[in-house]
Amino acid sequence: MEFSLARTRDVLQRTPGVLRALVAGADPAWTERPYGPDTWSAKEVVAHLIFAERTDWIPRAMTILRDGERSAFAPFDRAGHKDLLNRPTAELLDLFQRERAGSLAMLDAMGLDGTALARRGTHPALGTVTLANLLATWSVHDLNHIAQIAKAMAHQYRERVGPWEQYLSILSPPNPR
Amino acid sequence: MEFSLARTRDVLQRTPGVLRALVAGADPAWTERPYGPDTWSAKEVVAHLIFAERTDWIPRAMTILRDGERSAFAPFDRAGHKDLLNRPTAELLDLFQRERAGSLAMLDAMGLDGTALARRGTHPALGTVTLANLLATWSVHDLNHIAQIAKAMAHQYRERVGPWEQYLSILSPPNPR
Repeated sequence: MEFSLARTRDVLQRTPGVLRALVAGADPAWTERPYGPDTWSAKEVVAHLIFAERTDWIPRAMTILRDGERSAFAPFDRAGHKDLLNRPTAELLDLFQRERAGSLAMLDAMGLDGTALARRGTHPALGTVTLANLLATWSVHDLNHIAQIAKAMAHQYRERVGPWEQYLSILSPPNPR
Repeated sequence: MEFSLARTRDVLQRTPGVLRALVAGADPAWTERPYGPDTWSAKEVVAHLIFAERTDWIPRAMTILRDGERSAFAPFDRAGHKDLLNRPTAELLDLFQRERAGSLAMLDAMGLDGTALARRGTHPALGTVTLANLLATWSVHDLNHIAQIAKAMAHQYRERVGPWEQYLSILSPPNPR
């Protein structure tokens, strides 16, 4: 489908509620265990989303609007969320909700039109991208990590489903990152 | 982790709220389109979950408690939900919530103890399974389809994310069913 700022924003505003519905108050046996070597628990995914909110989406949108292609985005730190893991999951869910609300308020304040959405920036590894690419990626990145939380939880029961394992594609080994 | 009826039930009771958070009121461009040949839209996944609620989980649990391994489960009809697609998504979400509440009331009424959870039944294709396997599979099946809804939605933006596609594993081609 075509890019639409309203549709993109709709997915973005849903994510705090989706995360809460999936993990708030759940037994840490579901939410604090990874699903294989070098993978994240559901809790760690929430921490990553908070860190991305602070350093990735809105900061990069501002870079595009201010500098265009002249200055590449700061590289994203995939371990930048590790300090957040000291906090309880419930606190991380609240924090993500507040960070996301702040991001959406800034997005709205940008008053983006078609010309702005077509503006180009420079990704440090991927090269030229548009502001619309960035915003579409923000929403797909949310959905990617929602699916990852479901996978991290499902894997805790991998040895409990017996012969049904072969019917459940979510129990296949994790993708290499 | 070990099987626990309480942990299993907790995931099961979350799912109606997770589905609502993901798709209630969303643009049909997100929720009514499949993500490749022979795949389901987010809406169709909800319809499948309703049909499974009616014909799969509780009926199979009752078969195990009544007949043990003597009679195999009725095979599941993967197209049995097609009639439900005539109804609006909002109605399907309400219907799933009611069906799930009814299933959980029946599960509670069974008063399952360790002996009951170890009882065996016969799957028509997979052979011997335990009641605990069935209930664990019910919860993982929910998580599998939550991840599938995220994937079905994400794919609608596959051509909008530009070069970020290679970083987003959720945009990889659908698994064969």
